[in-house]
Amino acid sequence: MSRKIAEQIDVFGRDTVDLVSEDDLRAKLALGRPLRIKQGFDPSAPDLHLGHTVGLSKLRELQDAGHTIVFLVGDFTAMIGDPSGRNKTRPALSREQVRANARTYTEQVNAVLDVSRTEIRFNSEWMDDMSSADLIRLAAKQTVARMLERDEFERRYKGGVAISIHEFLYPLVQAYDSVALEADVEIGGTDQLYNMLLGRDIQRDYGQSAQVVMTLPLLEGTDGVEKMSSSLGNGIGVRLPAPDMYGKVMSIPDAVLPSWMRLLKGSGPENDPRAAKAALARQLVARFHGEARAAEAEAHFDRVFRQKKAPEELPEVQIRRDSNTDPLLIEVIEAAGFASSRSEARRLIRQGGVRLDEGRVEDAEARVAAGQHLLQVGKRRFARISVG
Amino acid sequence: MSRKIAEQIDVFGRDTVDLVSEDDLRAKLALGRPLRIKQGFDPSAPDLHLGHTVGLSKLRELQDAGHTIVFLVGDFTAMIGDPSGRNKTRPALSREQVRANARTYTEQVNAVLDVSRTEIRFNSEWMDDMSSADLIRLAAKQTVARMLERDEFERRYKGGVAISIHEFLYPLVQAYDSVALEADVEIGGTDQLYNMLLGRDIQRDYGQSAQVVMTLPLLEGTDGVEKMSSSLGNGIGVRLPAPDMYGKVMSIPDAVLPSWMRLLKGSGPENDPRAAKAALARQLVARFHGEARAAEAEAHFDRVFRQKKAPEELPEVQIRRDSNTDPLLIEVIEAAGFASSRSEARRLIRQGGVRLDEGRVEDAEARVAAGQHLLQVGKRRFARISVG
Repeated sequence: MSRKIAEQIDVFGRDTVDLVSEDDLRAKLALGRPLRIKQGFDPSAPDLHLGHTVGLSKLRELQDAGHTIVFLVGDFTAMIGDPSGRNKTRPALSREQVRANARTYTEQVNAVLDVSRTEIRFNSEWMDDMSSADLIRLAAKQTVARMLERDEFERRYKGGVAISIHEFLYPLVQAYDSVALEADVEIGGTDQLYNMLLGRDIQRDYGQSAQVVMTLPLLEGTDGVEKMSSSLGNGIGVRLPAPDMYGKVMSIPDAVLPSWMRLLKGSGPENDPRAAKAALARQLVARFHGEARAAEAEAHFDRVFRQKKAPEELPEVQIRRDSNTDPLLIEVIEAAGFASSRSEARRLIRQGGVRLDEGRVEDAEARVAAGQHLLQVGKRRFARISVG
Repeated sequence: MSRKIAEQIDVFGRDTVDLVSEDDLRAKLALGRPLRIKQGFDPSAPDLHLGHTVGLSKLRELQDAGHTIVFLVGDFTAMIGDPSGRNKTRPALSREQVRANARTYTEQVNAVLDVSRTEIRFNSEWMDDMSSADLIRLAAKQTVARMLERDEFERRYKGGVAISIHEFLYPLVQAYDSVALEADVEIGGTDQLYNMLLGRDIQRDYGQSAQVVMTLPLLEGTDGVEKMSSSLGNGIGVRLPAPDMYGKVMSIPDAVLPSWMRLLKGSGPENDPRAAKAALARQLVARFHGEARAAEAEAHFDRVFRQKKAPEELPEVQIRRDSNTDPLLIEVIEAAGFASSRSEARRLIRQGGVRLDEGRVEDAEARVAAGQHLLQVGKRRFARISVG
């Protein structure tokens, strides 16, 4: 805590969208002790994607400035899941699954944050002991009207989309976590603003000083439309193999390039989007896989896409003919691992994403004759097929 | 269970407002066993008033028809009270207070229902053991939109009157009580319809058959406007001394007399409201205090109100003069026990309800001279005052 308060405020405020409030932050910094900075993590999605690294970079800066990063694993709610069964992306996880996901996650986090200096906590530590009477008392601290002002709830309520009552309890649990952790600051994406502000109110109700709330911009997904999210399938996982990561970065729409550059701290030529993307792709792959893998990924990408050639190292798939009938192409796609079901394979063909021996296949009932073939699904997946 | 099902249905259906559903009731009666009939009681208001006796008479009929009456004391929620602090009529009670209130209450209930044959239960039996995770799972079984359809909530939400989130949990707790008790039938006032119907849904969610829901009409209070309620101060407690009970029945507006006659099973001349009220008053006092007290109360009432004389036996209050100053009338009213504070006494004077020596007093700062006086507050409260 050697730096002056003004310098500290500058570190906190840089690239943040909301800071509530600078006065509170100044007062807390004036205490002269490391601040407890909370960030929550939902352990039902264990894979870190590039969107997460925006916040993690910020946490690293604050960690390096001498503050205590408290990494909160929301295992209590993850173990409950969505009891209404409406939200399929929220299955109830076992305690073992949660711990395994948290381990996986923290290993990945370590690429950005120094996990050895980070306090990792689980909200089941206090929520398992909370009685239903205490939860009722907690629920009394917020009103239905205030909860329905929240964007997501308002939209669903007006649109006639069911909101289960337990969904009103989850933000209160998140807010209470700040009480249990005695958080000085909570950081999250702009979509977390409401929940984090509720934390301020609840901390005051429990006799604590209100946490400072900081939001960071959300990174757009590879679709360029929605925020990056594991459940939307528009993410780039930090554990993705180097060639895939490189290729996915190259696939983002030009429109989101400036914000990716800024949020992921990339650098590249300003007037050539292709070259800029290539520079960013190489920088990001190098960050998570090292410089050597990044160079390889770039060479691979250029060979396959710029020169339109199949990559040199391809998986080989052997298909045995059943009696005298040639196998269906959809069976071959599934056997090659490029689709998880025959109906998915059929969809890929219909979408025009399947090539056999360099020719696009349009018949979902096509069969593959005996012999050697080159199968391509989408832009980046290739296999050598041997039918016999 | 000797009576035929059709006769039983007749007993259940008589004087009820809603019966959901007769088919379900028929199926349950066909089981040939005594049904478990639940009625809830809020132990924060320990005194039974005449409004309660409407439902209790019904329960007595069903008890006499061979069914099991389950009297549920909602102690779990009474011990929580209203944690938002907005509802002053819902202070948090201690376990001892709840038990004492329940004892008081069941003693009074015994005037109508045979308590020795009644199953008395407390919902803390199961709610104390419910974890916050289980309460969250319970809350997932109902939606915000359905809860806001409830009359009271809808009115408050639209009117901008705060609804705390814990208020959404109380109906779910009441519904879950039916699961814990394996209730076949739940009986309540018409204002309980929504909560009891929710009990049907929740029982199904927990794999039970849905309870039959029966509502009974609500008795109007002595104001003739609102339903009778201890917290509204328009009730007639069954423990009220005979003269007071008699007088309060005489004070009800003529408009509510027909429904009082019907719901309290009174009888009297149809074309003379005064005589009908007198008959009802005497019948009700006899029901709770015996015939002798009822006759006395009637004589007392006639002497004081019909002949406009002070009753013969009056409390005597001695007031000692402070130095040479006459006491304030508001002090005298408070000393006589007719007001719990000087500001209440002042209000009584301003409302024109205070007479001293048969003359109305209009000056809230009036003093009472040395000597003997007759003090009258309202219609029925008299005291002899001696200042010296």
